[in-house]
Amino acid sequence: MCSHCSCGQPTRTVQLRHNLLATNDTAAERNRERFAAAGLLVLNVLSAPGSGKTALLEQLAHQWRPAPVGVIVGDLATDNDAIRLRAAGARAVQIQTGDLCHLEAAMVGRAFDQLEHQGMELLLIENVGNLVCPTAFDLGEQLRLVLLSVTEGEDKPLKYPALFKSADVVVINKVDIAAAVGFDRAAALANLAGVAPQAQIFEVSARSGVGLDALMHWFSHQRQ
Amino acid sequence: MCSHCSCGQPTRTVQLRHNLLATNDTAAERNRERFAAAGLLVLNVLSAPGSGKTALLEQLAHQWRPAPVGVIVGDLATDNDAIRLRAAGARAVQIQTGDLCHLEAAMVGRAFDQLEHQGMELLLIENVGNLVCPTAFDLGEQLRLVLLSVTEGEDKPLKYPALFKSADVVVINKVDIAAAVGFDRAAALANLAGVAPQAQIFEVSARSGVGLDALMHWFSHQRQ
Repeated sequence: MCSHCSCGQPTRTVQLRHNLLATNDTAAERNRERFAAAGLLVLNVLSAPGSGKTALLEQLAHQWRPAPVGVIVGDLATDNDAIRLRAAGARAVQIQTGDLCHLEAAMVGRAFDQLEHQGMELLLIENVGNLVCPTAFDLGEQLRLVLLSVTEGEDKPLKYPALFKSADVVVINKVDIAAAVGFDRAAALANLAGVAPQAQIFEVSARSGVGLDALMHWFSHQRQ
Repeated sequence: MCSHCSCGQPTRTVQLRHNLLATNDTAAERNRERFAAAGLLVLNVLSAPGSGKTALLEQLAHQWRPAPVGVIVGDLATDNDAIRLRAAGARAVQIQTGDLCHLEAAMVGRAFDQLEHQGMELLLIENVGNLVCPTAFDLGEQLRLVLLSVTEGEDKPLKYPALFKSADVVVINKVDIAAAVGFDRAAALANLAGVAPQAQIFEVSARSGVGLDALMHWFSHQRQ
């Protein structure tokens, strides 16, 4: 079976998959050069469906002002998220992936063509909600942010180790309802420390705004 | 791009993918015959990571007594869920899929070999937490149950239409915290009615037990 992604391809398709990833890597490098030339800090934001990616991005768009925040957002269907993000002040471009469970670098490059990035400091790429498929696809980002909500259980880093190992920063979201859902914070932090010791950890509530200052402060330092 | 799954394969791999799905369908039919011969009601349980699949299955295992409930559970890594389910009285077999984001029928067939199904009425297959990849893979189940938690947002049926369209039953979980997370029940039900009008809807809390009687009553009728 293919060891480079999650698609369940038998061995004979592995070479084709390698070619696909090599093509993606080339497009990702081109994106990275364009992002650097534009002076942008670019994050690839990944999580399960419903962890609060869009809510977090709305808050960041709101609080990063006066500089506009750019968002490229991927979903299989609908442009609900781009509409929400524009209402929060972001410059947002929606990618509809159809039946594809992750974004690819070439899609992101085409979406970036549509984005007015003058004056922009921060570009957030909201990937398709999925803890497996996006892992192998570099989009040209500088940092990979994995979002984990307290409602999902403390063992998600153990169950989806490849994605968490690839994270530069892990944000634990919905801490305002941690007690209501019986979240075991110590266990979650221990699991993250075991699987993703490289990752910076933040604990926030995108709804109440708790913890966002520290995250934004950290973002600011990554730009320098 | 491949129109049969979510794996992002370019066109030239589509034929190989078709072959993979045809092989899976053959194995699924064999599973279905074996399940019918054993007099089992078999459900394929699908959801995003953290929607509460394992918690729901624990409750069903507990409440279906005295008949034992069988569970075949898939995760990329760990056997945490099988351990939890055995503690709840289920006969559980864990499948570790490595980097594969869905179960396939042949894996389920091999796991079923390991399951003592004497006296069993109900077999639950807990798929990998993913709203995309498992959609195209028939496991030989009679019914497909999609779980949606109130913490995930009301628009998930719109964003992942293929999976919801394939559901026989949709269970809305974590209704005990619906108010705390600001869940818009009417919007969720309207979205489900639009995307998945064929699906029977239940609203439960796997934690508190609310709504499980109605779900189990419905299961009993499906066995007849």
